[in-house]
Amino acid sequence: MIKPLLTALLAAALPLLACAAPTTIEHLEPAFWWAGMKNGRLQLMVHGAGVAALKPRLAAYPGVRLLGSTAGANPNYLFIDLEIAPNAKPGQFRIDFLQGPTVAAGYDYRLLPREPGSAQRQGFDSRDAIYLIVPDRFANGDPSNDDIAGMGDPANRGDHGGRHGGDITGIAQHLDYIAGMGFTQLWPTPLLENRQPQYSYHGYSPTDLYKIDPRFGSNEDYRRLVEQARAKGLGVIQDIVPNHIGSGHWWMKDLPAPDWINNSGGPYVETNHRHVAQIDAYAAPGDVRRFTEGWFVPTMPDLNQRNPRLATYLIQNAIWWIEYAGLSGLRVDTYPYSDKAFLSRWTRAIRDEYPRLGMVGEEMSNNPLMLSYWLDGARNADGYRGAMPAMMDFPLHGALRDALTEPEGQGYGTGLGKLYEAMVNDALYPEPARMVLFEGNHDTNRIFSALGEDAALNRMAMALIATTLRTPQLFYGSEILLKSPIQRADGEVRADFPGGWAGDAVDAFSGRGLTPAQADAQAYLRKLMNWRKTAKVVHQGRLMHYNPLDGIYVYFRYTASEKLMVVLNKNTAASRLATARFKEMLGDAKAGVDVISGERHPLAESLSVPARSALILEVR
Amino acid sequence: MIKPLLTALLAAALPLLACAAPTTIEHLEPAFWWAGMKNGRLQLMVHGAGVAALKPRLAAYPGVRLLGSTAGANPNYLFIDLEIAPNAKPGQFRIDFLQGPTVAAGYDYRLLPREPGSAQRQGFDSRDAIYLIVPDRFANGDPSNDDIAGMGDPANRGDHGGRHGGDITGIAQHLDYIAGMGFTQLWPTPLLENRQPQYSYHGYSPTDLYKIDPRFGSNEDYRRLVEQARAKGLGVIQDIVPNHIGSGHWWMKDLPAPDWINNSGGPYVETNHRHVAQIDAYAAPGDVRRFTEGWFVPTMPDLNQRNPRLATYLIQNAIWWIEYAGLSGLRVDTYPYSDKAFLSRWTRAIRDEYPRLGMVGEEMSNNPLMLSYWLDGARNADGYRGAMPAMMDFPLHGALRDALTEPEGQGYGTGLGKLYEAMVNDALYPEPARMVLFEGNHDTNRIFSALGEDAALNRMAMALIATTLRTPQLFYGSEILLKSPIQRADGEVRADFPGGWAGDAVDAFSGRGLTPAQADAQAYLRKLMNWRKTAKVVHQGRLMHYNPLDGIYVYFRYTASEKLMVVLNKNTAASRLATARFKEMLGDAKAGVDVISGERHPLAESLSVPARSALILEVR
Repeated sequence: MIKPLLTALLAAALPLLACAAPTTIEHLEPAFWWAGMKNGRLQLMVHGAGVAALKPRLAAYPGVRLLGSTAGANPNYLFIDLEIAPNAKPGQFRIDFLQGPTVAAGYDYRLLPREPGSAQRQGFDSRDAIYLIVPDRFANGDPSNDDIAGMGDPANRGDHGGRHGGDITGIAQHLDYIAGMGFTQLWPTPLLENRQPQYSYHGYSPTDLYKIDPRFGSNEDYRRLVEQARAKGLGVIQDIVPNHIGSGHWWMKDLPAPDWINNSGGPYVETNHRHVAQIDAYAAPGDVRRFTEGWFVPTMPDLNQRNPRLATYLIQNAIWWIEYAGLSGLRVDTYPYSDKAFLSRWTRAIRDEYPRLGMVGEEMSNNPLMLSYWLDGARNADGYRGAMPAMMDFPLHGALRDALTEPEGQGYGTGLGKLYEAMVNDALYPEPARMVLFEGNHDTNRIFSALGEDAALNRMAMALIATTLRTPQLFYGSEILLKSPIQRADGEVRADFPGGWAGDAVDAFSGRGLTPAQADAQAYLRKLMNWRKTAKVVHQGRLMHYNPLDGIYVYFRYTASEKLMVVLNKNTAASRLATARFKEMLGDAKAGVDVISGERHPLAESLSVPARSALILEVR
Repeated sequence: MIKPLLTALLAAALPLLACAAPTTIEHLEPAFWWAGMKNGRLQLMVHGAGVAALKPRLAAYPGVRLLGSTAGANPNYLFIDLEIAPNAKPGQFRIDFLQGPTVAAGYDYRLLPREPGSAQRQGFDSRDAIYLIVPDRFANGDPSNDDIAGMGDPANRGDHGGRHGGDITGIAQHLDYIAGMGFTQLWPTPLLENRQPQYSYHGYSPTDLYKIDPRFGSNEDYRRLVEQARAKGLGVIQDIVPNHIGSGHWWMKDLPAPDWINNSGGPYVETNHRHVAQIDAYAAPGDVRRFTEGWFVPTMPDLNQRNPRLATYLIQNAIWWIEYAGLSGLRVDTYPYSDKAFLSRWTRAIRDEYPRLGMVGEEMSNNPLMLSYWLDGARNADGYRGAMPAMMDFPLHGALRDALTEPEGQGYGTGLGKLYEAMVNDALYPEPARMVLFEGNHDTNRIFSALGEDAALNRMAMALIATTLRTPQLFYGSEILLKSPIQRADGEVRADFPGGWAGDAVDAFSGRGLTPAQADAQAYLRKLMNWRKTAKVVHQGRLMHYNPLDGIYVYFRYTASEKLMVVLNKNTAASRLATARFKEMLGDAKAGVDVISGERHPLAESLSVPARSALILEVR
């Protein structure tokens, strides 16, 4: 009953501007909304020459009420506040814009029906494994959209900082590969329009917050991708940027208000990148302002979320995409750079609509306190109430890499000891299992390179990420040992995935042309992540770990009925590990069965651990 | 009225054993106590051949009641529990030890009067500056006690690990120097008897918890030292070791109970030094046990504080020294290595008797969470209630040293930025100003060496320690730029203070023979610390600091009526610093007066900052 109506409504031309007068409404956002949202308030931003002088009039529609309208500081903006009662039905109502008695413009506003279970959708959590891709660099499914007239930044695959042509069609064509690898969530870096003259491929300079970049595809393509992904057991996580926009955003030509953008009057003010200033009780107010109100770069105007109209706009925008596309979660870019009160409000508003949505924030700090501050339930000294369920675990990411590269025996806090000791910081996290542990991402170097191109260490990293008390995230290409410079080199880290372009000599999707080491790594990860999909003991189990000794780190995940033993051996020789030390966990267990090889390993007195290996044993 | 009685009681021979029968009481501890303590319970440990078979009988004494006695697991130990009513008067009462009807032994137990204001004594806090000395290496005031027959470990000044002869008399002779330098608290490393065959000089292997080592002096010498120090405005902080004893302790020849010492049955079990295990929710129980119950070294038996008799013994022992010697506080060695529940109980019991006592624990970790866990008022995830008012601030100590040695301009978290960013962790500390910040101690290398023997950086370190929101602590000899290897070398770091030994070529007390650089450093610190003694804005002021830019770190301490501006300039050239950025603090201030030079520095538009300098300006 609902589906046909939804389809009919979506099929309607958009925007549906029925103008009978000289005024042209250039933007009305959000273009449509849904009936039955928890929050019954809806703010419409209307943009067009002189619209502030118009008076909106709502056609009668049961459950929908015009609360009022406010002219923006700019005569070309009008904000309309609606109240939508819980019992309002999906449908369409007319908004007329009056100039005196004359209808100067009109808009047929649609309330769509929600997908069943939309509010209670289960987002990503520790049961999931996330695959991060940079869409421009993953697969070029539709070469016809590589360049779009008037968009600028022409495709040039030879340029590390240029667009390479990857798109939504390319992703859609390879969903089977991603799902087949055992991933259950897909996080593409931002897909919104980035109408920037250059360096637009990464997507973090959005120029229209309601529109997919046509070089990636259309809004409808995106919605379809999410639907197709869901059918294959893959949720989609949208990468969202509440902190800034791209300088090519249409707002920048005609700002809704003088205070819409921080420091927009010039001279240019750059952020000081002092994340601590947001939290530090001693920080000078000017440094806090400089951090949150300074711009990232001249091409990324910094949004002033203290403007209440903008704050509401950003909240609605996030909810719109979740509802429209059917997302399983959000990855929030540059989380701490926004206004602090806004962050709490924005995050809570989203979670209020979708209590089980997955959300993870980026706080690129190695200080666990800097992450915990933003978490829902954190015990903050200043009383600030964080709202996020999870953050990207940069501290543990760093500890993992150090643990595998630093030599053993150099001190308690180095090598595997660093990894062991890092876990104590979980005391700061209300829900450690929801924190997202990654081996790498688009802002790090490639893990295989960081690990000295050592495939054994790479396997150990993957084993840990897949089995410790975290939600794992991998970066596309890590499964085939892609390399990068050790020093940060964004364009090279975000290299094209082999096989994503017609004529590629190597096709990592099919495996054609991979080196034996690459094929091995890919097969290992495929096995590992597919096993993880149903490994309840990893999804829900508690963690107990043991002081690393002699280059070996042992930990268990356990529930009342299951135990998983993980053994990371950094030694270049096989080791025999006495098992008496693990008696709390092993009890009378006789053996463990390796989840990768299927081999049975006796455990009664000692365990034979191969050199440079990760054993993941289901204890029997 | 009280003083003459106290003197008379202390003058009485000790122990006062009036034995009329074959049983000899070898130890009765504590040998005396005080009337009017808040906790009315007192446990006496009685040791002697077969004493467990004796029955104690108390002569009638108003307010004192025998609650009972318990034979130890060892027949040579008896524990007596007394109740001392709040109204019990100072005086003496007889305890007879009966074998059937016969008095086999007796003891005249004394209740001393407390010093007026003893319970409410004001311990050290952020108003203070602490001077740490290693008594064996500070000054040899009495060469006649360098070797004591039967004590072993003969004095040998040529041996880094041997005894050098320093003593209490030596300290007492130089109290004017210490007080004259501007310090208000003196922390000597432990002075208790260390009857160990070798490596006894450091004092961390106590062999009698109620006795000053005779090579340092007598209990009475110690009490007098504290009294003399107090007269000069110096409190004394005792270094106390609840975690372990020395293997030469008399208990080790005749253990009070089989569980008195952890793992005393052998084979030897060493601690794993995994401090995190005490806090980490995932730690395997065996690792926690290994951490808290393993021994430091074979010569340091690890006390089992879960034995309630031992726990009470240790609580009373700490209180005994505070009351007996008149201490202003305790520095608690190896704080996290003891039983967790005991630590809370021990600390609270002491603070219950002396609510304003200074206490600072050693937790040699760079993770702020590991320090905060033990603090009174910390918001611990596991509900553990810490009890300490302060810990030694190893994280900030490390950040300070890195800040001064790392080059600037290498990233946000290096150089001065590291120091700035470290302060965010104060959110974890309920009372940051009570945390003790040190430039070095007996377990670090010498700061002057760590700073590349750069006297300017050294001044900056001292300026910061003296003026930031902390309680400062210096290590003896830092004022005259003593050096050490960069790698840990305990014996060399704990070098003899020049002038402490007759015939020393250099006398740092008088200044004779110091190099000009040493004399300058000493004069600088003397000026700095003497200024600090009355600098209320440092004692009580709040902190505001500014993002370090261009090699300059600026912070303010401020109260409603005063402002102090501190400017650390790492540049090798003088800088002109625009002051507009500090307007929240400077307001319309015209100038700042340097507390060291007395020079007036205009502040209206910009401040001229000399190269490689610390300006400490009283804002006018």
